[in-house]
Amino acid sequence: MKPLVGIIMGSKSDLNIMNQAAEVLDQLGVAYELTIVSAHRTPHRMVDYAETARSKGLKVIIAGAGGAAHLPGMVASITTLPVIGVPVKSSNSIDGWDSVLSILQMPGGVPVATVALDGAKNAGILAAQIIGSHDEAVADKLVQYKVEMRKKVEESIRSL
Amino acid sequence: MKPLVGIIMGSKSDLNIMNQAAEVLDQLGVAYELTIVSAHRTPHRMVDYAETARSKGLKVIIAGAGGAAHLPGMVASITTLPVIGVPVKSSNSIDGWDSVLSILQMPGGVPVATVALDGAKNAGILAAQIIGSHDEAVADKLVQYKVEMRKKVEESIRSL
Amino acid sequence: MKPLVGIIMGSKSDLNIMNQAAEVLDQLGVAYELTIVSAHRTPHRMVDYAETARSKGLKVIIAGAGGAAHLPGMVASITTLPVIGVPVKSSNSIDGWDSVLSILQMPGGVPVATVALDGAKNAGILAAQIIGSHDEAVADKLVQYKVEMRKKVEESIRSL
Amino acid sequence: MKPLVGIIMGSKSDLNIMNQAAEVLDQLGVAYELTIVSAHRTPHRMVDYAETARSKGLKVIIAGAGGAAHLPGMVASITTLPVIGVPVKSSNSIDGWDSVLSILQMPGGVPVATVALDGAKNAGILAAQIIGSHDEAVADKLVQYKVEMRKKVEESIRSL
Amino acid sequence: MKPLVGIIMGSKSDLNIMNQAAEVLDQLGVAYELTIVSAHRTPHRMVDYAETARSKGLKVIIAGAGGAAHLPGMVASITTLPVIGVPVKSSNSIDGWDSVLSILQMPGGVPVATVALDGAKNAGILAAQIIGSHDEAVADKLVQYKVEMRKKVEESIRSL
Amino acid sequence: MKPLVGIIMGSKSDLNIMNQAAEVLDQLGVAYELTIVSAHRTPHRMVDYAETARSKGLKVIIAGAGGAAHLPGMVASITTLPVIGVPVKSSNSIDGWDSVLSILQMPGGVPVATVALDGAKNAGILAAQIIGSHDEAVADKLVQYKVEMRKKVEESIRSL
Amino acid sequence: MKPLVGIIMGSKSDLNIMNQAAEVLDQLGVAYELTIVSAHRTPHRMVDYAETARSKGLKVIIAGAGGAAHLPGMVASITTLPVIGVPVKSSNSIDGWDSVLSILQMPGGVPVATVALDGAKNAGILAAQIIGSHDEAVADKLVQYKVEMRKKVEESIRSL
Amino acid sequence: MKPLVGIIMGSKSDLNIMNQAAEVLDQLGVAYELTIVSAHRTPHRMVDYAETARSKGLKVIIAGAGGAAHLPGMVASITTLPVIGVPVKSSNSIDGWDSVLSILQMPGGVPVATVALDGAKNAGILAAQIIGSHDEAVADKLVQYKVEMRKKVEESIRSL
Repeated sequence: MKPLVGIIMGSKSDLNIMNQAAEVLDQLGVAYELTIVSAHRTPHRMVDYAETARSKGLKVIIAGAGGAAHLPGMVASITTLPVIGVPVKSSNSIDGWDSVLSILQMPGGVPVATVALDGAKNAGILAAQIIGSHDEAVADKLVQYKVEMRKKVEESIRSL
Repeated sequence: MKPLVGIIMGSKSDLNIMNQAAEVLDQLGVAYELTIVSAHRTPHRMVDYAETARSKGLKVIIAGAGGAAHLPGMVASITTLPVIGVPVKSSNSIDGWDSVLSILQMPGGVPVATVALDGAKNAGILAAQIIGSHDEAVADKLVQYKVEMRKKVEESIRSL
Repeated sequence: MKPLVGIIMGSKSDLNIMNQAAEVLDQLGVAYELTIVSAHRTPHRMVDYAETARSKGLKVIIAGAGGAAHLPGMVASITTLPVIGVPVKSSNSIDGWDSVLSILQMPGGVPVATVALDGAKNAGILAAQIIGSHDEAVADKLVQYKVEMRKKVEESIRSL
Repeated sequence: MKPLVGIIMGSKSDLNIMNQAAEVLDQLGVAYELTIVSAHRTPHRMVDYAETARSKGLKVIIAGAGGAAHLPGMVASITTLPVIGVPVKSSNSIDGWDSVLSILQMPGGVPVATVALDGAKNAGILAAQIIGSHDEAVADKLVQYKVEMRKKVEESIRSL
Repeated sequence: MKPLVGIIMGSKSDLNIMNQAAEVLDQLGVAYELTIVSAHRTPHRMVDYAETARSKGLKVIIAGAGGAAHLPGMVASITTLPVIGVPVKSSNSIDGWDSVLSILQMPGGVPVATVALDGAKNAGILAAQIIGSHDEAVADKLVQYKVEMRKKVEESIRSL
Repeated sequence: MKPLVGIIMGSKSDLNIMNQAAEVLDQLGVAYELTIVSAHRTPHRMVDYAETARSKGLKVIIAGAGGAAHLPGMVASITTLPVIGVPVKSSNSIDGWDSVLSILQMPGGVPVATVALDGAKNAGILAAQIIGSHDEAVADKLVQYKVEMRKKVEESIRSL
Repeated sequence: MKPLVGIIMGSKSDLNIMNQAAEVLDQLGVAYELTIVSAHRTPHRMVDYAETARSKGLKVIIAGAGGAAHLPGMVASITTLPVIGVPVKSSNSIDGWDSVLSILQMPGGVPVATVALDGAKNAGILAAQIIGSHDEAVADKLVQYKVEMRKKVEESIRSL
Repeated sequence: MKPLVGIIMGSKSDLNIMNQAAEVLDQLGVAYELTIVSAHRTPHRMVDYAETARSKGLKVIIAGAGGAAHLPGMVASITTLPVIGVPVKSSNSIDGWDSVLSILQMPGGVPVATVALDGAKNAGILAAQIIGSHDEAVADKLVQYKVEMRKKVEESIRSL
C-alpha cells in the first residue's frame, strides 16, 4: 500500500517516541513511511523531502524534534501538505518548553499542527483524522477507536 | 456552497481574532460557517455541535478559546473530525500560557491540532491544507498563497 | 450512609493521588463515592454525572485530572454544586503547569475551587469544610483535625 | 440580614477587583460583609478576624491579595471555615505568578479554594454555591444564573 | 552562649536543608537556636515566636519553608528584626517556583531577605554578616571564610 | 553624618526605583550614600567600591540592577558586608525574571539578600533592620514605622 | 569596502531592532550588508544565502527573528561561518520566550551565538569582536568603545 | 602550540560538561587552555584572567557557569575578545533558567555569545568557527565536521 503519511524525526533518539505514531496508524489502517530527516544536520535532505512529499502521494507529514525544533516548521515552509509537529522532550531540553515553543509559535502564513509534548500517538490519530475526512474506511476505524477508548474506561471503572 | 469548515469560539470577544480564520478561508476558496459555542456556558450546545458536525458535512472544525480553554479538546472528545485549536490571549489570561497549555496538552487518544497563540489565520490555512489534501483546486490556491508570500518578502527587500 | 461528596478522576492512573481525598473524608466522617469519569474518553458519562449529581444528594464534587485537565471545569459548567479541582502531575505533564492552569483559569461565571498540584488531601478537607459549614459534627471533627496537626508539629519539635 | 460570607482583602488597591465578589453575591441574594485585613501590616487583626469568623456566623471567607499573597492561607490556618483565595494581579506582581502560587500551593492539611487570577466574581459564585449546598433559595438563584449566562451567549450568537 | 540567630522551619522535612545554616554558623562562631514553627499548623506559636524574638536577644531570624511558604513573610510582619527567607524545594513544590515567589515578592513595608532555592548555607553566612557588621570577631571569621573558599578553588585548579 | 549604607545601581535608568531605598532610609534616620557603579561598564570601579566599603564605615550595601544583573553578586564576592540585591525590571528585561534569577540564585558561600522585583523600598527597610539590630534609635523607628503602616490600613478601613 | 558581516532578518518588521546592529558596526568601522531572508516564506533564498556567504567574503552572519525563530539555526546548519542569533520580541511572541528558546537551544553540532532578547546592538559588537580577533584596527576601536562606555557612566555619576 | 581558546569554568563540578568544549577543539585542531576561574570565589583571578587574555594570544574565551552565572558576563566586561557563555545546569539551579538568563540577558555594550544549556560542545565548535573565519585549515576541518555529521545521520537512516 502506498504510504499516505510521512513520519520523520530529527534524530534516531526520537524513534522511541515517534514509533507511537506509526503504531496507531497501523491500528487505524493507514499506510505510512518512517525515516530520519535532520533540519540541522541534513538540511538539503529536508528540503528534498518537503519538496517531493506531495508528488509522491503523501497526504500528511508528521515531524518530531526536540530542543530548538525547526524540522516541522521548515518542512511546512516548503510543502503545502498539512504538517503535524511533535515536540519531543529530548535530554538537553529545558523541560520541553524549547521544543513546544519552537514548533507551536509559527508566524502567520505557515501553520504547524502541534500536538502535546511527546504526543506522537495523537499525531498519528490526527493524521488518520485528516485522511478520514475523505476516506470512509478510516473514518469508521476512528469511530471504533473512540468506542474502544470508552470501553477501556468502563472496564477500569468496574475494576475499582 | 455547503460549509466544509466550522469555525467556533467560546465568546464574542474572541471574534476579532477568529475572523482571521474566516478571512483566509475566503481567500483560499473554502466554504465555512462561523458561530459561538461556549464549553462552559452552553455545554449542551457544544455536545450537539460536535455530534452533528460530521453528518452535516463539515470536514474540519476550528475552535478558539482563551484562559482555561476547554472548547477545542471537548469538541475533539466527541467528534472524529480533525479539530484545530486556537489559543486566544484573552484579557484575564496569564500571558496566554493558560490557553496554550489547556489546548495543547491533550491526553493520548484525543488530539487537538494546536496553532500559535492568537494564530487564527494559520488555523484557517491549516484547515484549507486538510481540505486541499483531497481537493486539487484548494491545493492549487495554497501553492499560489505560498508564491504570494514569497513575492511580498521580495518586495519588502527591494523597499529597504 | 448516603454519599455527600463525589470524587471523580479522569483516569485510573490518578487513583493513587485521588485516594488521598477519600482517606481524609473517612477520617472526617464524611460519606463519599469514588469513580472514574473521563472528560475526553467518556464525555456523555461526564455530562450525565454532572447533571444528576445534585438530585442524587451530592453536596460537593471533587474532580482530579492531569495535562489539559478539562474534567473539573466541564463538570462545573453543568452543575451548580461547588466543584473542587485537583491538578494531577501526570507522566506527560509539563511539570504540572498544564494541569494547574487548565483547572484554575476558569472564565467568569463558572468557578472551580482549585487546590495545589496533587493536593487531593486538601480537596478532601475542603469538601468537609463545605459540609461542615452546615453540619456541626463535621465542623467539630475539623477543629479536632487542626488540633492534631498542631500536636504533630509539637511532637516533631520535641524529637529534634 | 446577617452576613454569611466575609470578603477581605490585603489592601484598598484590591477593592476594584474584590468588589466583583460583592456584586455577584448581591445578585445571588447572599448577605456578606467586606473589609480590609492585611496579613503583613495588620497580622493581629488577621488572627482576630479568622478566630471569630465562625462564631459570628460566617459560613465562607473570600480573601484576595497580590504578590506574596499570604492572607488566604494564613486565615485558613486559623479557621475551619472554607476559605476562597483570589490571586490579585497587583502592580508589583511578576505577571500574577507570585499571587497565584502563594495562594494555590498550600501544604497538606490547610486548603485554600483558589480561583483564577483576578477571579473575584467566581469567588463570589463559589461562595454562593457553598451556601447553596444547604439553602434551596440560593441554589435556585444559581440555576437561574446559569440559565441567564446561556441566554446571553444565545443573544450574542444572534447578533453575529 | 546566648543565641543571636533563630533558625526556624515549617516542617521537620526541611531539617535536612536548614541544618546547613546551623553548620555554617557553628563554623563562623555565631550562637543560634533551631526549632520548628509552622505558619499553617501552629499559627499562634508563630506569632509568639516573632513577638518575643527581639526581647529574648535574637538579632536575626532565618526562616525556611516550601510550597506556599508564608513563614518568613509572616514572621517579618510581626518582628522588626531582619528576617532571612530560605525557599525550600519540597516534594510537592512546582520546581521550587512557589517557594521562591511566595517568599521573595513581599509587599512594600515588610522585607524578607531571600536567598537561593535551598540556600540555607547562604542564609547562615548572611546572618553572620549581619552580626559581623557590629562584631569584629565574626567579621574576621567571614574574611577568613572567603580566604578559605579561594584556597579551595586554587587547590581544585592544581588538581585538574 | 557618616553614611552607614551604600546604595549603588548599575545605570542612571535605575535611579527612579533605587531612590525609594534612599527615601525610606531618610525616614528611618539612617545615613547613606548613593552612586552609580556598573558591573559591566565600570568593572574596576566596582571592585574598588566593594574593597573599600567596610573600611570607609559602611555597614550594608544595597545594589540594584536589571537584566543579567551581576552587580549585587559581584560586590558580595569581594566584601564581607551584607549585600542587599534589588532586581530592577529594566526595559529589556524578560518580565523581570532575568534580574530576579541572576541576583537570587547565588552559589553557596556568597549570599545576596534579595528583595522583590523593583523592591528598593524594602531594601532600604531591610538595611535599617540590619543597622537596627545594634542601634536602639533605629530599632525604635522601625517599630514606629510598623505602627504607622497599621494605622494607614485602619484609616483605609474606615474610608471604605 | 567589501562587507564582512551579513545582517539578515525574517521580516521587515524586525528592521527597527536589527538596524541597531548596523549602527554599531558603522561606529566600529566594520563593513556589512543588510537584507531580509525569511526562513518560512523564502526557504530557498535562505539556503542560497547561507551556501554562498563564505565564498562571497562574509566572516560572520547576524540573523534576527521572532516567534518560532528558525532563521539563525537553519543558516547555521548550512554555513560554517559563525552565526549570531538575535531573538526579536515580535508582536505575536509569548513575551519573547519563543524567540529566545528556538534560537538558543540548538542541538550539538550546530551552534548559534545567541544574544539577549532584542539585543541587536550586542550582536553588532560581537561580530566586530570576531572580526577584531584578527584585525588590529577593529580591535582598537573595541577598546575605545569600552573606554567611552566607562566615560558615559562617569558622566552620569557626576550628574547625580 | 600556543592556545587560541581559553576555556574557563566557575567550579570543578562544571568540568564534566566543559570538557566537551575541549574535546571538540581537539577534534578540530584548535589549541586551547582549560582552567577554573570563579567569579564569586576568586574575583581578582577573574579580573586578571580577563585583562591578560588578549595579550597572551587568546582569540576567544569560553566561560561556563551555573546558577547566578556571572563569569561569562564579567569576563566580557573587561576583555574585548569574543566571550562564549555556557549555561550549566548545576545541582541547585532552577531547571537551568537561572544560568541561561544570567548569561544571555547582558545589557547593551557587553555581549556574551550564549549557547544552549549544557551546550559546551557547541561552544567549542563556535570558538573554532571564530578562529576559522581567518584560518583556512580550521575552516576546512569545520566543513569536514559538517560532512561527518551528515554521514552519521545517513548511517542511522540505513540502520532503521
